[in-house]
Amino acid sequence: MADVRFFTRSAPQTIQALASLSGAMLADECHADYLIVDVAPLDRAGESEVSFLDNPKYVELFRTSRAGACIVKPKYAGDAPAAMRLLLSDDPYRAYARIAQYFYPYIPLEEGISPNAHIDASAHIGEGCAIAAGVVIGKHVMVGKGCTIGANSVIHDGVTIGDNTRIGALCSISHAQIGERVIIHRGVHIGQDGFGFALAREGHVKVPQLGRVMIGDEVEIGAGTCIDRGTGPDTVIGEGTKIDNLVQIGHNVVIGKHAVIVSQVGIAGSTRIGDGAVLGGQVGLAGHIRIGAGARLAAQSGVIADVPAGASYGGTPAVPIKDWHRQTVTLARLIKPKHHTHFEAVEEAPV
Amino acid sequence: MADVRFFTRSAPQTIQALASLSGAMLADECHADYLIVDVAPLDRAGESEVSFLDNPKYVELFRTSRAGACIVKPKYAGDAPAAMRLLLSDDPYRAYARIAQYFYPYIPLEEGISPNAHIDASAHIGEGCAIAAGVVIGKHVMVGKGCTIGANSVIHDGVTIGDNTRIGALCSISHAQIGERVIIHRGVHIGQDGFGFALAREGHVKVPQLGRVMIGDEVEIGAGTCIDRGTGPDTVIGEGTKIDNLVQIGHNVVIGKHAVIVSQVGIAGSTRIGDGAVLGGQVGLAGHIRIGAGARLAAQSGVIADVPAGASYGGTPAVPIKDWHRQTVTLARLIKPKHHTHFEAVEEAPV
Amino acid sequence: MADVRFFTRSAPQTIQALASLSGAMLADECHADYLIVDVAPLDRAGESEVSFLDNPKYVELFRTSRAGACIVKPKYAGDAPAAMRLLLSDDPYRAYARIAQYFYPYIPLEEGISPNAHIDASAHIGEGCAIAAGVVIGKHVMVGKGCTIGANSVIHDGVTIGDNTRIGALCSISHAQIGERVIIHRGVHIGQDGFGFALAREGHVKVPQLGRVMIGDEVEIGAGTCIDRGTGPDTVIGEGTKIDNLVQIGHNVVIGKHAVIVSQVGIAGSTRIGDGAVLGGQVGLAGHIRIGAGARLAAQSGVIADVPAGASYGGTPAVPIKDWHRQTVTLARLIKPKHHTHFEAVEEAPV
Repeated sequence: MADVRFFTRSAPQTIQALASLSGAMLADECHADYLIVDVAPLDRAGESEVSFLDNPKYVELFRTSRAGACIVKPKYAGDAPAAMRLLLSDDPYRAYARIAQYFYPYIPLEEGISPNAHIDASAHIGEGCAIAAGVVIGKHVMVGKGCTIGANSVIHDGVTIGDNTRIGALCSISHAQIGERVIIHRGVHIGQDGFGFALAREGHVKVPQLGRVMIGDEVEIGAGTCIDRGTGPDTVIGEGTKIDNLVQIGHNVVIGKHAVIVSQVGIAGSTRIGDGAVLGGQVGLAGHIRIGAGARLAAQSGVIADVPAGASYGGTPAVPIKDWHRQTVTLARLIKPKHHTHFEAVEEAPV
Repeated sequence: MADVRFFTRSAPQTIQALASLSGAMLADECHADYLIVDVAPLDRAGESEVSFLDNPKYVELFRTSRAGACIVKPKYAGDAPAAMRLLLSDDPYRAYARIAQYFYPYIPLEEGISPNAHIDASAHIGEGCAIAAGVVIGKHVMVGKGCTIGANSVIHDGVTIGDNTRIGALCSISHAQIGERVIIHRGVHIGQDGFGFALAREGHVKVPQLGRVMIGDEVEIGAGTCIDRGTGPDTVIGEGTKIDNLVQIGHNVVIGKHAVIVSQVGIAGSTRIGDGAVLGGQVGLAGHIRIGAGARLAAQSGVIADVPAGASYGGTPAVPIKDWHRQTVTLARLIKPKHHTHFEAVEEAPV
Repeated sequence: MADVRFFTRSAPQTIQALASLSGAMLADECHADYLIVDVAPLDRAGESEVSFLDNPKYVELFRTSRAGACIVKPKYAGDAPAAMRLLLSDDPYRAYARIAQYFYPYIPLEEGISPNAHIDASAHIGEGCAIAAGVVIGKHVMVGKGCTIGANSVIHDGVTIGDNTRIGALCSISHAQIGERVIIHRGVHIGQDGFGFALAREGHVKVPQLGRVMIGDEVEIGAGTCIDRGTGPDTVIGEGTKIDNLVQIGHNVVIGKHAVIVSQVGIAGSTRIGDGAVLGGQVGLAGHIRIGAGARLAAQSGVIADVPAGASYGGTPAVPIKDWHRQTVTLARLIKPKHHTHFEAVEEAPV
């Protein structure tokens, strides 16, 4: 089980209750009242723990697991050990996530405003908030109900934060409107000036950045990520989008709903990313391009032109992923004596 | 107009005054007293707003814009709608920047030292500074006149900061001399140890880092950027250089004047970058190389050798940009059946 | 010598004493009592300073150096100027590091707990610690003896920190066990949730992250680096490993001992890195792969499969470094008219 110094586990629960809260179906109603006390991986779960099988390559592990219960797709039910109680689901990982959320719910900071927080008299803090020591909140800030703001974070003048949003320690937020149930991890900086200059040899002139950052509901933003405010238009992060650590999002970028942005991605100004797009780690996007809905970009790719909806791209400059793989294979072949092609024979001959 | 919760607009101004402050020329003196109240983009500007035309691809938008006034190059004057008042400039974006700065000047924090700042008695704070809550200032720190230091920032012992410099929230600065009118955004870390070790299998030995960080006047440094101090020589950022977010600058790096370093660039130790060089996003530079004045490096390029002054390079390892483009095209051609070349016919034949 | 505003030098020392503390051997016992006051580079060192020769390309500089003493490999002893006193060592840089550490030892913050730190009553702070202003320490935190915690850092509930560990300003640490003599620079975030979601078009479900971060003794972690906690297993950084600035380490990553991770590297979840591996700047590693002990990855490479122990890889996707160099050369040749090959002749012929 999880280290008790850091995690607090909820009370045991019947399989039936876990089935309900996770949307899974109990394979055998006889087990409805069986008590489960924790979640655990297949190879470590015991009699009173629930596990899950998601990746087919773990079917062997599943067959010999001692888990008291397991969430599986119906088609693997026949592979289960005789003693195992089954929760059937078309998406076992999702069901597992719900059950793990039950056993290990988010534990908010203790409700209340620290006497060591510095809050402007004109700010409004909703009911049930936890505001930690060292937090600085500026003028006319509006914080919704049930929010958490971690130690030493700074919320600048005029920012609004929706209900049940959690902000980690050491964040700064300005020029922004934050939705509900948003999770902002530590060290995130939102709303600073975008990188806007009228460039000239004799000295670059700073262009005032007059827009905002609009963050939709249920967005999650990883540690150390920076999101610049717009130049006049806004920078927008759509509902449910998940952003990893150390990501850079430039001014006027518009990201749709439920996109996934892996760590260290950089998105240059005014680029638009469609709903559900997935950007691998360290991807770089040029400014003023469009990534279609559901597009997938391989890690480290460098994208300098539009990518169609649903397409998979890779490489720098990025091309359709199959082409990238073929380029890679072609290059590898060009240099390999063991794949001695006609071309290479020619190449190496005296010219 | 900009969101009043975050921005405060200056008073309306005559076109004549805007011409003066921006270095533009009024096309028709009859309009000298016309009042402008705000800046706005071509497609949204109204009667009392001033816009600009910089990019030729927006000439159509310009022709139908309802902007009361517009800054344009003289050659586009003929394309203006009849009712539009014109400000002529050879660099409309620069003139626009000046006018936008007039309407939306930087609003400093309220002057004064927060009672919740922790300032060593030996530190000197100049007149007219604003020092926010939670700021920690060490021994013998010298802060010039008119500076701003954002909430929870930490200025370590001995640092000097020139007049009218602004430091955002949550920064840390040590072992550094900061110029005048410098802008340091939130979460910037300046002066920590460089990554210096005598490497050995049985344990790496830390090499004391005995230099400083010297930041010239009017430098701007983006959120989350890290600048390590020198090993004995200093790390130097030249006057007027603009650095974006999440950039890494290693020990002993020397950057010239008016360079532009886009986000997530990494510069390894002891590399030198000439005046006015432009580094695209996510560029990586090896240590101990020289990038000539005015050189341009394409985003994501990886540079492992010197780049001549004025040259444009791209790719990893970086080559002259034209070569990189040709490599890209060549690779693309090698794999495309539709460009079925002799080579490919041979390649695909049984060998 | 180093700027006295930032550095404090220890008392002069005899060559004999410096030889002892650095493991070097005095070439001529007659010099044993000669006093050295500082370290300096070959070209700037004077009569009372000690320098070192490590890189053969500086032999010329060594021959004409005025350094009072110098650490060199025995084979270069014959190249020394007549007046120079020699300290012989097989690893002069390592010996220099030890001597520089003597002259410029780490100066801890003044011992004591700032009255402006906010420490939960249940936390335990060891003897001889320095806890700066604005530090926030949660419940049941255990801080060992002789630790330093920089201004405005946040240590969350239950964290343990070993003896003589130094934590810079503006760090946040949760769900972690930190070893002894660890150095954590400013702005580091350790222990936040990994990027774990059950992905789905209609909304991603957050998967509770139930593991910890375990940091071994003598690890060093650079400014702005983020280390996510494990999902159930732990994220582990082995003893003596050195991590540079702005690195991203995902959940369940396990790094061995004495590895070197240069700045802006990104390591995706569950990847394992062997002892002594060296990762160049901006390297990206896919999840669930293994990098063998002593492997070396060139800067910016993108690694998507296992790398054997001791191997050197480069490129994206990474291949053995010799293959990568050959690919680079081959590509360069393909586009160069001056290296006009048979292939290109064919390629450019009408098809």
